[in-house]
Amino acid sequence: MGLDTPGLRPDAALRAALASDLDAMDAVIRERMASEHAPRIPEVTAHLVGAGGKRLRPLLTLAAARLCGYQGRHHVDLAATVEFIHTATLLHDDVVDESAQRRGRPTANLLWDNTSSVLVGDYLFARAFQLMVGTGSLTVLGILSDAAAKIAEGEVLQLTAARNLATTEDIYLKVVRGKTATLFAAACEAGGVIAGASEDQVEGLRVYGDALGIAFQMVDDYLDYGGAGDGIGKNLGDDFRERKMTLPVIAAVAAADSAERAFWERTIASGRQEEGDLQEAMALMARHGALEATRAAALDWAGRARAALAPLPEHPLRAHLDDLAEYVVARVV
Amino acid sequence: MGLDTPGLRPDAALRAALASDLDAMDAVIRERMASEHAPRIPEVTAHLVGAGGKRLRPLLTLAAARLCGYQGRHHVDLAATVEFIHTATLLHDDVVDESAQRRGRPTANLLWDNTSSVLVGDYLFARAFQLMVGTGSLTVLGILSDAAAKIAEGEVLQLTAARNLATTEDIYLKVVRGKTATLFAAACEAGGVIAGASEDQVEGLRVYGDALGIAFQMVDDYLDYGGAGDGIGKNLGDDFRERKMTLPVIAAVAAADSAERAFWERTIASGRQEEGDLQEAMALMARHGALEATRAAALDWAGRARAALAPLPEHPLRAHLDDLAEYVVARVV
Repeated sequence: MGLDTPGLRPDAALRAALASDLDAMDAVIRERMASEHAPRIPEVTAHLVGAGGKRLRPLLTLAAARLCGYQGRHHVDLAATVEFIHTATLLHDDVVDESAQRRGRPTANLLWDNTSSVLVGDYLFARAFQLMVGTGSLTVLGILSDAAAKIAEGEVLQLTAARNLATTEDIYLKVVRGKTATLFAAACEAGGVIAGASEDQVEGLRVYGDALGIAFQMVDDYLDYGGAGDGIGKNLGDDFRERKMTLPVIAAVAAADSAERAFWERTIASGRQEEGDLQEAMALMARHGALEATRAAALDWAGRARAALAPLPEHPLRAHLDDLAEYVVARVV
Repeated sequence: MGLDTPGLRPDAALRAALASDLDAMDAVIRERMASEHAPRIPEVTAHLVGAGGKRLRPLLTLAAARLCGYQGRHHVDLAATVEFIHTATLLHDDVVDESAQRRGRPTANLLWDNTSSVLVGDYLFARAFQLMVGTGSLTVLGILSDAAAKIAEGEVLQLTAARNLATTEDIYLKVVRGKTATLFAAACEAGGVIAGASEDQVEGLRVYGDALGIAFQMVDDYLDYGGAGDGIGKNLGDDFRERKMTLPVIAAVAAADSAERAFWERTIASGRQEEGDLQEAMALMARHGALEATRAAALDWAGRARAALAPLPEHPLRAHLDDLAEYVVARVV
């Protein structure tokens, strides 16, 4: 935790340090969500944006820009851009997953329908690009359009990999980058670019965001088997029921004997799950140290995130970012 | 028809005149559709892009740029951008409409699933923006991100307007702009901008594309009640069954007596359609000249498109564009 904010969680400390930037971003989001012709658009997006999301991604953009000494206003637009892209992918994920819960509230596609989720997501993507055009930075546009392509590619890859026992750790990492780390990295990098930071600082920010996102997602995947459910969002075993090839499963499959392999074939590849299978999966993971391996990998990536901050200037925000990387993995320590 | 291409339809004449540009565009599309990580992406897009589409929108970009004397290569990237955005909206429309046919072939979401349609559409949007960033033109990025926002907004508006008998001609026009004319206009405008054309020429191209798109969509809406079905794509009465408030319906509702109004309430607003209702709808349209009014409106917009070409330089491509506006409405003349 930053020395200047004793008692605050690192994300709350970041929010406190960047409160006026966050307020300005909220104003941009409200203004850009408005649609003269289609009042349903702000209705759907307000449900998501107002859902008490942690706004971690736009915080990274604001922090990166301020940490590099930025004094202008474009970082606020970029932060809104990042949140729009994130929200658009959530809306489209809802269609893809047909998931019934998102951040503990009914998803947009149940309240409205798939159609609104698809179209409002498209609207937010377009709004994101309009905002970026307003910053006048082709470099930033390049970073975030590359990120958008990688995100979509990663989601398609995840579909292909899902339920496929041959999924390797390497493919898993590509999926994780697509679904989480790419936007974290782009959020950090864009903040540095708009601030005119040096090349090695921008690269440090990019690597920090990438590693932070990977650690973040690995912890999420760990908790799906090793946590207790948070009671409001994701539940223990959701990934198992959706037959996702996350790192705990990959590690357990890699160490499986032939009887265990038959278990994974039946539950993940074929999807014939029975009462007690989740407990059996967790027992197999314990037997082979699969959760321990996932935890170690998450800690390793958090360490890489912290190391990547080395070229950045001494600044309270740098300490907050460092704390954040530690905090993200604290749930599995 | 252009004097230099006797016997060819105007769209074929344009394709002939721009054959090498189109080949270059195809190469860009193939290259950019490729995905190292997610082989399913080119699989889905090849189905659409290779579906014998007329590529009318990218043709407009290529023609606008060449007509304004452009000698560079960026117009090819912009044409591919326009086709990617169009294809992405088709993929997302498939989810929205859950339509079973697109260009006479099974839609991507039946061959694959909604998920692939959503994600591959997102991938194409992102690829489109990457291509635009490569042109280095913030003006073009602004034009096409504005267009993308208007397209999504128009689709949401269409959802709100659908099945609502209070839909006015004004709302209809906004929907038509969103679903068709905005991308036509942006395709033309972007071609002029990349060629460094004068402001009044760029504006002429924009107005041409807008009016052409409106005429095009009005003819489509006319043929849904006044045509014979083309046997491969859209069928007579599809809009009626989907209860869309197109111009023929709006005109018939505006002139309806109370018994007729009850018919429209039942069939469009409530959706209780029976055998013979389509024939009755067509009879009511004939009684009130609703198709004739739609035809007249389409011809008027085609005339506006042709008039908008006045500031453009004398050039065989200008004659082709002029012919194209005439041709688009020829099916209802």
